[in-house]
Amino acid sequence: MDIATSPLALPFPAMPEIEGVTLRVARAGYKDWGRCDLTYVELAEGTSVAGVFTKNVCCSSEVELGREQVKAGRARALVVNAGNSNAFTGYRGREAVEQIMAQVAANLGCTPTQVFVSSTGVIGVPLPKDRARAGLDAAFAAAECSWRDAADTIGTTDTFAKGAMARAVVDGKTVTLCGIIKGSGMIAPDMATMLGYIFTDAAAEPGFLQQCLSTANLATFSCITVDSDTSTSDTVLAFATGKAGNAPLSSFDSPGADAFAAALNDVCRQLAHLVVRDGEGAQKFIEVRVTGAVSDESAHRIGLAIANSPLVKTAIAGEDANWGRVVMAVGKAGEPADRDKLSIGFGGVWAAREGLPLADYDEAPVAQHLKGREITIEVDIGLGDGRATVWTCDLTHGYISINADYRS
Amino acid sequence: MDIATSPLALPFPAMPEIEGVTLRVARAGYKDWGRCDLTYVELAEGTSVAGVFTKNVCCSSEVELGREQVKAGRARALVVNAGNSNAFTGYRGREAVEQIMAQVAANLGCTPTQVFVSSTGVIGVPLPKDRARAGLDAAFAAAECSWRDAADTIGTTDTFAKGAMARAVVDGKTVTLCGIIKGSGMIAPDMATMLGYIFTDAAAEPGFLQQCLSTANLATFSCITVDSDTSTSDTVLAFATGKAGNAPLSSFDSPGADAFAAALNDVCRQLAHLVVRDGEGAQKFIEVRVTGAVSDESAHRIGLAIANSPLVKTAIAGEDANWGRVVMAVGKAGEPADRDKLSIGFGGVWAAREGLPLADYDEAPVAQHLKGREITIEVDIGLGDGRATVWTCDLTHGYISINADYRS
Repeated sequence: MDIATSPLALPFPAMPEIEGVTLRVARAGYKDWGRCDLTYVELAEGTSVAGVFTKNVCCSSEVELGREQVKAGRARALVVNAGNSNAFTGYRGREAVEQIMAQVAANLGCTPTQVFVSSTGVIGVPLPKDRARAGLDAAFAAAECSWRDAADTIGTTDTFAKGAMARAVVDGKTVTLCGIIKGSGMIAPDMATMLGYIFTDAAAEPGFLQQCLSTANLATFSCITVDSDTSTSDTVLAFATGKAGNAPLSSFDSPGADAFAAALNDVCRQLAHLVVRDGEGAQKFIEVRVTGAVSDESAHRIGLAIANSPLVKTAIAGEDANWGRVVMAVGKAGEPADRDKLSIGFGGVWAAREGLPLADYDEAPVAQHLKGREITIEVDIGLGDGRATVWTCDLTHGYISINADYRS
Repeated sequence: MDIATSPLALPFPAMPEIEGVTLRVARAGYKDWGRCDLTYVELAEGTSVAGVFTKNVCCSSEVELGREQVKAGRARALVVNAGNSNAFTGYRGREAVEQIMAQVAANLGCTPTQVFVSSTGVIGVPLPKDRARAGLDAAFAAAECSWRDAADTIGTTDTFAKGAMARAVVDGKTVTLCGIIKGSGMIAPDMATMLGYIFTDAAAEPGFLQQCLSTANLATFSCITVDSDTSTSDTVLAFATGKAGNAPLSSFDSPGADAFAAALNDVCRQLAHLVVRDGEGAQKFIEVRVTGAVSDESAHRIGLAIANSPLVKTAIAGEDANWGRVVMAVGKAGEPADRDKLSIGFGGVWAAREGLPLADYDEAPVAQHLKGREITIEVDIGLGDGRATVWTCDLTHGYISINADYRS
């Protein structure tokens, strides 16, 4: 099945090299496809690492191991396998990951726990060790490649390559952050898996890097949803090589810490949005802004209830300003809300205020807004100061075609 | 848009009259359609009532009032409006309900709080009082009608009429239970609303009737899902006229109480299944059986996570034995589970046991099972004795067509 490029795709940005980061790709042949499917990233000695991982309790060995590895805070390499997620493969899957870690460690002269591995693709099939071994040998010998090559190689059924960058001035030095990510295009009987990697030449202690990544994650990756199904393999890792020469960032008291955290958040937000823009079957990018909730956390849960509602998502697909479905989604979120204080709008125009449809509601600008590609839904709960923004895409025939009109 | 009758439809059963229950229907003209849309049920004096209602906090005035009314335990009438849900209509919507209650009370010589009202259909439009008044007057003057007529009249875009009956011997008397329900066919920009009504000639105290209904609800209506979106108007009411002449059931110590409770549960289960069978776009009826969870409640939540997963539901639509998506759904449920103890099967054949795909897995009988209309998914968590069964339908292009290929 051919999937057309998402109408919400953005061009791959110009992204500079990051000193201390060397990118290579190779063909391991995890699937029968004529493309590179193994990404090997070498990182300078002393590189800090931080990570956030899926909360799915049926996670892959890669996630289990990665979660332990980040605690030591140092990384020398990243390997990403595309075409096989190695999830639900028991001890055999774990052996394959450990083999990759050992092979890279021997090549670089580092400890295996400094080698991070991710895999994405079909589940229930142990990653073939022989292909992984030969693929890695080919990667070791390969020429360096571009960010675009790496972004293409980590993808599975993504319809476009996804990258983002930002800069910040830290301790008088300009530091650069580059990130790549893969999202949720799925034509094999697999789980959509989000894998994201951010690289910077900034010097940052692992604890601070983790703090920044965890904070950014809450406002970016944790605020997107395509279909409410949480993958077993979701992983975002941040690597800081320290080559920019700034005094290492160790806390928010360090000079430039705020600027760095903001730049990291910016890259995470860009990457998160790109994943939504390549959501399965997506025709519209939807921003849900919730204000007036009893807390930010409550606003976040209400926002996700709206963004995950099949009836809201199909209404947007149908360009229908169906605020009644938004009311329903607010009401089912399980959070404090009062029907008679609730206001709902689209594209900056209120359709209902304080529990009643507006008598002078002008649907023409709303209808125009819903014809576009970028949709906003505004919800004011009317109870407090809590606010949150989440992002999703619409639910279309494309989603059904990708996930149902296919037999394994 | 014409929606074909669900391929999962069942014929309307033969249902006897219930002494003390008089059914009438009329045309209020809530929508511009050539059919009856107001159902009026007169109940004998002394009829007990019990109810369960949506937990959606943005519920309709009908639900708010009904929740209060059942506390008194007595009912003389039921009015069901189809074509307008009267939800999110503020004080004007509430006035319309109170007018209906007063008009029926005057007609019957009862108190208004003994008149129960439900509405289903478009939201955000106050129920027109003039049409309600004229419709009720027509209903008062109408001839008695059949269960089938009433089941047709409470429906909105349901593709078939839904009824169920059961009998039990209580205190030496045969009592009869008849139920009708409407479900989730939706071609207007409305919320799917489940309204169910069960009538029996048994004599039962309101407290005991409520206890039986609440218990049955947990095992039936609370175990079905079409699309995870909870309506603002869901209501199930049970009425007991007492005309069978048994000594009134007041607790599970009363003779025949167990038989009555079982019969009520049976009717509720039949009605719940009928709603799933008319789920929007449904092509397959799916039973999810969860065993081995740490508790029944945990099993229930895991079952709903599976039944609500778009990726599981599209896989079944595609007749794809994609147990990996079931693993994912178990893992995201937020309940205790251990990937390496998990077993997944379809139609009684295990595909994966204790965290690994079965080496000798024979996919042929599973593929055959998935081609059918009635699908079972078996999940054993491997941790305890908790078990639950939930029911849903597949997610198809029909769901998208009904909910997105339509403009308000």
